[in-house]
Amino acid sequence: MTASSSSSSPDGTSVLANVRLPDGDIADIIMRDGLIADITAMPSDNDNGATRIEGYGMLVLPGLVDGHMHLDKALSGLPWMPHPAGPTRLSRIETEKALRASLPPVTERASNLVRQCVSHGTTAIRSHVDIDPDNKLSHFHALVEVREAFADIVDLQIVAFPQSGVLRAPGTSDLLDAALGEGADVLGGLDPIAIDNDLDGQLDILFAIAERHDTGIDIHLHDAGADGLKEINALCERTAACDLTGRVTVSHGFCLGAASPDAFARTADAMAEAGISLATHGGASSPLPPVMALRERGIEVFTGNDNVRDTWSPFGNGDMLERAMLLAWRSGYRTDDDLQVALDCSSGAGARILGLEGYGLAVGNRADLFTVDAETPGEAVAQRPRRGIVLKGGRVVAREGEFSGESGD
Amino acid sequence: MTASSSSSSPDGTSVLANVRLPDGDIADIIMRDGLIADITAMPSDNDNGATRIEGYGMLVLPGLVDGHMHLDKALSGLPWMPHPAGPTRLSRIETEKALRASLPPVTERASNLVRQCVSHGTTAIRSHVDIDPDNKLSHFHALVEVREAFADIVDLQIVAFPQSGVLRAPGTSDLLDAALGEGADVLGGLDPIAIDNDLDGQLDILFAIAERHDTGIDIHLHDAGADGLKEINALCERTAACDLTGRVTVSHGFCLGAASPDAFARTADAMAEAGISLATHGGASSPLPPVMALRERGIEVFTGNDNVRDTWSPFGNGDMLERAMLLAWRSGYRTDDDLQVALDCSSGAGARILGLEGYGLAVGNRADLFTVDAETPGEAVAQRPRRGIVLKGGRVVAREGEFSGESGD
Repeated sequence: MTASSSSSSPDGTSVLANVRLPDGDIADIIMRDGLIADITAMPSDNDNGATRIEGYGMLVLPGLVDGHMHLDKALSGLPWMPHPAGPTRLSRIETEKALRASLPPVTERASNLVRQCVSHGTTAIRSHVDIDPDNKLSHFHALVEVREAFADIVDLQIVAFPQSGVLRAPGTSDLLDAALGEGADVLGGLDPIAIDNDLDGQLDILFAIAERHDTGIDIHLHDAGADGLKEINALCERTAACDLTGRVTVSHGFCLGAASPDAFARTADAMAEAGISLATHGGASSPLPPVMALRERGIEVFTGNDNVRDTWSPFGNGDMLERAMLLAWRSGYRTDDDLQVALDCSSGAGARILGLEGYGLAVGNRADLFTVDAETPGEAVAQRPRRGIVLKGGRVVAREGEFSGESGD
Repeated sequence: MTASSSSSSPDGTSVLANVRLPDGDIADIIMRDGLIADITAMPSDNDNGATRIEGYGMLVLPGLVDGHMHLDKALSGLPWMPHPAGPTRLSRIETEKALRASLPPVTERASNLVRQCVSHGTTAIRSHVDIDPDNKLSHFHALVEVREAFADIVDLQIVAFPQSGVLRAPGTSDLLDAALGEGADVLGGLDPIAIDNDLDGQLDILFAIAERHDTGIDIHLHDAGADGLKEINALCERTAACDLTGRVTVSHGFCLGAASPDAFARTADAMAEAGISLATHGGASSPLPPVMALRERGIEVFTGNDNVRDTWSPFGNGDMLERAMLLAWRSGYRTDDDLQVALDCSSGAGARILGLEGYGLAVGNRADLFTVDAETPGEAVAQRPRRGIVLKGGRVVAREGEFSGESGD
């Protein structure tokens, strides 16, 4: 495939030509100053001097949103490392810390993973970053560097994440507070019962920091059964009390996938009331929360790749269409309508929770787009075909699965 | 990547050179008359005149075995068709039958899917084929044609499968009997309780046909809960009584993934006693049987892609490494040892159940091999990297993900 140059014409206009819209129509997308200026039947007459980017009739979709990543843990770009940890969460926490010193810098590994994600069509990422008394803010500072280096390539939101616990790891709460002061976007948390053995203790600290910095919370809740439900319900109460409605996310929430119908309904209703969203990686070996039942209550469900080839998991490749497939496969979705719900979890829903302005395939929105060799959004999810072009603010940042953002292509 | 010719030298010897063995050693594999003649440290001195196939240091593994397919249902090669059926199994059965007349011939669609599977490294397939009073033996005859056309490319085992039920679709038992007489390899069955509403009725017929033709049985059991367990236990009793020990497979067996520990142990012990194996596609939205607990009892567990982009499922791409990944991901496997178990389910275990002679990466075995850009079998499963070469009986049948078997390459 020959590639026309994608740098904009003198008046800043470029055309993503000959693409299939989600409704099946073939169109040209006119882009100016990083925005979608027009979507027209092809051939557009706007191409007087506009730079033309050939779309080859591929399906165009808004950029994928990875709503739950751990960029600082990535081993991307390194030789294969067989999984080194034992079977428990605590073993993985300690193994990871022991290995850190022998790994290349976080900036290098995280940048490799960002490039990989972008090559699949991702244009926005929410990444948790480990903050603990060992590494202090060093991983966080590294991700701030990555956020700046990739500012024109991907929207990167950073969650200050207490991977070693809050009360269990003294000094962590001050570090979280400092990270928020230095530009972390969201406050993280982790299984208050299993890790800190103190539900109210961890939540007291988290909500105090969140209120002080006027920030949202995205808390990892792996805890199963009654503990997990208790944690979610406590979150719901505090969210309403602290006026954080709509700004709190439960990541994983496996307990919702195994709850009795009554317990599920009560908890989901409370989440809807508090505007609490759910982030999921598809469940893997844990119960997957029932996505449709949550969405029917108005609860946003969004997906993320979570651990991509790191000391926590050997799986993952950074492809958010694959993540949508995994969610759909585990949820029993088959129709194009249902597959489109899974796609929304990997795109629109994430964008709404990340608060991305001007997101979506419509005139006036940001030209954050990618093309994929599919006829419908359903096919894009089920089959995850090869990608054509990835655009960020109208600029080509990947072609044919190869990252090209730094070169400006 | 330039490709050297892979036709054999005058004395029939060729060398798959510079490949990584599963233990990490780099080696040359000498092939003669379709068999592995030697595995030597490279460079081998056997290359006097031997045709050299460059392996580029990629990992070499024995060909993948797809133990549960539905080649006749495939829509491979056709434009995307949004899933047309309703949410029930019976709706899918009826929708499929209604659509058949509008589709290209089974031979064409099935051949497309075989090529796709081979391009990923598959060298043996067990495919079920629909037999019912509507299509009679026409799908079966089509797969016999495909089996012959691809005889040098893939080992194809055909299961005579009563997709519309046995008692529920009068005439089916005679058709199954006829198919076995005409060269079907295995007898199929389907949910005797849910579909035929007559456990003993369907099993009476199946075991009578199996005994008459001295053939094994591979029965689809989706039925959940007590019905499913009752079906498996009935199978176990009859298998022992009919001396079919070691020749019966339960496909899916979702009930095993949701049984109480006691019920599971009783049923699994009975399966082990009767030598009944389990075929799984990874469970999707159903409970996945506990693979390790079954294997620990000596029960063979093998995987298959099942429905690949057909009127039953929009998912699947024919890649048995992806299937191993899905099994591993759902089972919570992380270590290379565990990932290798998942790989065995997609290769060795299937080969043992299909009865493939001379299977495996050892001198004297058939040169059914593929290369993959991974350092360990664990990486091959978790990451499913690009494939290099696929060899069937020492002949190149695919390169770089592209099928080349018919051209002889």
